Amino acid sequence: MATGNKPFPQMHPVAGFKLGTTSAGIKTPGRKDLVVMQIPTQASVAALFTQNAFCAAPVVLCKQYLDTDTPRYLLVNTGNANAGTGDQGLADARRSCQQLAALQTVSEQQVLPFSTGVIGEPMPMEKLLGALPAAVAALDEDGWSDAAQGIMTTDTRAKGASLQYQPDPSSPQQITITGISKGSGMIKPNMATMLGFVATDAKVDSELLHRALRLVTNKSFNRITVDSDTSTNDSIVLVATGASGISIDESNFEQFVAQLETVFIDLAQAIIRDGEGASKFVTVLVDSAGNTDEALKVAYTVAESPLVKTALAASDANWGRILAAVGRAGVDNLDVSKISVSLNQVLIVERGGRAASYTEAAGTEAMAPEDICIHISLNRGEVSETVWTTDLTYEYVRINAEYRT
Amino acid sequence: MATGNKPFPQMHPVAGFKLGTTSAGIKTPGRKDLVVMQIPTQASVAALFTQNAFCAAPVVLCKQYLDTDTPRYLLVNTGNANAGTGDQGLADARRSCQQLAALQTVSEQQVLPFSTGVIGEPMPMEKLLGALPAAVAALDEDGWSDAAQGIMTTDTRAKGASLQYQPDPSSPQQITITGISKGSGMIKPNMATMLGFVATDAKVDSELLHRALRLVTNKSFNRITVDSDTSTNDSIVLVATGASGISIDESNFEQFVAQLETVFIDLAQAIIRDGEGASKFVTVLVDSAGNTDEALKVAYTVAESPLVKTALAASDANWGRILAAVGRAGVDNLDVSKISVSLNQVLIVERGGRAASYTEAAGTEAMAPEDICIHISLNRGEVSETVWTTDLTYEYVRINAEYRT
Repeated sequence: MATGNKPFPQMHPVAGFKLGTTSAGIKTPGRKDLVVMQIPTQASVAALFTQNAFCAAPVVLCKQYLDTDTPRYLLVNTGNANAGTGDQGLADARRSCQQLAALQTVSEQQVLPFSTGVIGEPMPMEKLLGALPAAVAALDEDGWSDAAQGIMTTDTRAKGASLQYQPDPSSPQQITITGISKGSGMIKPNMATMLGFVATDAKVDSELLHRALRLVTNKSFNRITVDSDTSTNDSIVLVATGASGISIDESNFEQFVAQLETVFIDLAQAIIRDGEGASKFVTVLVDSAGNTDEALKVAYTVAESPLVKTALAASDANWGRILAAVGRAGVDNLDVSKISVSLNQVLIVERGGRAASYTEAAGTEAMAPEDICIHISLNRGEVSETVWTTDLTYEYVRINAEYRT
Repeated sequence: MATGNKPFPQMHPVAGFKLGTTSAGIKTPGRKDLVVMQIPTQASVAALFTQNAFCAAPVVLCKQYLDTDTPRYLLVNTGNANAGTGDQGLADARRSCQQLAALQTVSEQQVLPFSTGVIGEPMPMEKLLGALPAAVAALDEDGWSDAAQGIMTTDTRAKGASLQYQPDPSSPQQITITGISKGSGMIKPNMATMLGFVATDAKVDSELLHRALRLVTNKSFNRITVDSDTSTNDSIVLVATGASGISIDESNFEQFVAQLETVFIDLAQAIIRDGEGASKFVTVLVDSAGNTDEALKVAYTVAESPLVKTALAASDANWGRILAAVGRAGVDNLDVSKISVSLNQVLIVERGGRAASYTEAAGTEAMAPEDICIHISLNRGEVSETVWTTDLTYEYVRINAEYRT
């Protein structure tokens, strides 16, 4: 299941950034599962990784390599996460970087590895290494759509976002931002999504690019949850090739971040729309909180409550479960008598109890659409935060009870 | 679904403590749903309540009344939680106490109200009040079994535990401890279970009784989770009638607490065995942790992970998901290379990766039984903690998607 039916968008190429996809047969013969991305020299690269202490071998290596050199290639496989694989996993990830580096005459440290798929299985190295030349041969600035398919696991849809904008209305010059992501289960990114790759032809120095990446990730990939399970492999990479010739500096940084945020939120929401077993796309908006921390505590407690999520699956306006989740979120000195809650446009709770105007019929109508907004007002401050999530369905249980079989 | 098939135990009466059960038809006509318990004068009473900020009207009232007087009656209904019901809910709870107080010639403050069931519906007061005389007429020291049925909601089984012990082997005098509990969903008690009532004929002063209650609750009801959702109505009451004539003081307190803990753990585990949709009874044991806080963080993160719980439902020894949950539990400076994990007696992870001796066949065999112990060694300290939970099945989703319909 999945929600929404937005078609895969037109992907504007980013000058200088090429993608090549092939099938290595890592888990399923014939399936696109290996992607190589080529970054031009002079590009800036920023990346964020999972905060899970059990981070996968490729994540360990990425962090090391980024400390020593600027990446020229990204090497991505699905079908195997290379996580929980110990020293052998590290050796395997390193070997795949070495092999691609040798093929393309760059240093081992200029190749960043990314893996996603089942945890704890050894990587089928011969298949992976054998397919590298085909992936390299496919490198093309128009390779985005194939790459979006090539990084999928339990995803039912490829996920892409792309836009162009004119930073200076008096000049026809454009900046392009294009990106792909994957993810469907084990989704509560903590710094990044399962996998996301975004490129722009803007010219952005490394410090500014990192700042932009942190800002927009905190409003997109770090605001989604399918099942509260933070993955071992979450990684997001942002590449600025500079090929547009347009420089980003403090004067146009805010504008750039706003455009980048549009692409990031699109990619993050696409993961939620394709959440495992999802039949609803749920926005949890908490406003008038005292601070960001308490707004997020309330939003995530509601978004992750199994009882709220099963009620959503049943299109049941079970506001009691929403209140119970708000009440256990751990907000200090919460005055429950100030709280109001709406489902889409229907006020269901005011002053901590059922709204006087509320009827079951109105609640049922509010819950019918595929897209539901749970809007919670704490009425104790000025801060708002938004988190996106899914419902919890039979299908989620089926997918995750059968994943390895 | 439920796990285990322990028959309902023999319930030793506690001298002086009487229970009367009847059917008020609060939600389902003919179902036992109203229980009155009578506490003798001179008894000590200790109680703990939910930490959910949205605590239900009866919980609010219990706390007020306990500040002003020693309770003589407990009044319990199922079918309606009287939570999220605002001022009307408080007035309703007070009215039910007043009515029982008038019938029995005690003060309103000597009646503690308890409710469990659906949240946010007004209490059908005429049905409740009309049934009070029948409940009072049924008061009997042998009323435990009926009362255990009378407090059930989505429970599929009544839950009771009872024991007798000789504090002094050289004397035939015995102390009896008997209790009942209910709960199946919205279970992550934080201070107490959904509802639990335990009585003993030991003579224990109020301060010592509270100390004992806190100690044993922290090893029983505060160590279980079905779905991480803390209820609005959790309450546990411990009554010491003193009728045995045996006093508990510092000299025999530890012995008393150990016996009490046996009853409490029995009642808490019974809730997990009857967890909504449960097909597994899961013990998560974390040892060699640096402190209690990190041991509990790891235990609860594993116990509440939807991916671990769905793997358990499929009897899939998916140790990668266990490691991923340990890794995101938020333990400072966790050295993953020191961690080992066993499923029942099978070592599956050592030094942070798949154990050399591990085979899929052994893992499959370890996962086959209904009772599974996930034993995680952090190897960084001396502290152990145990949490009990269930798996996550289709049945859980069905029950909670259909609960109100």
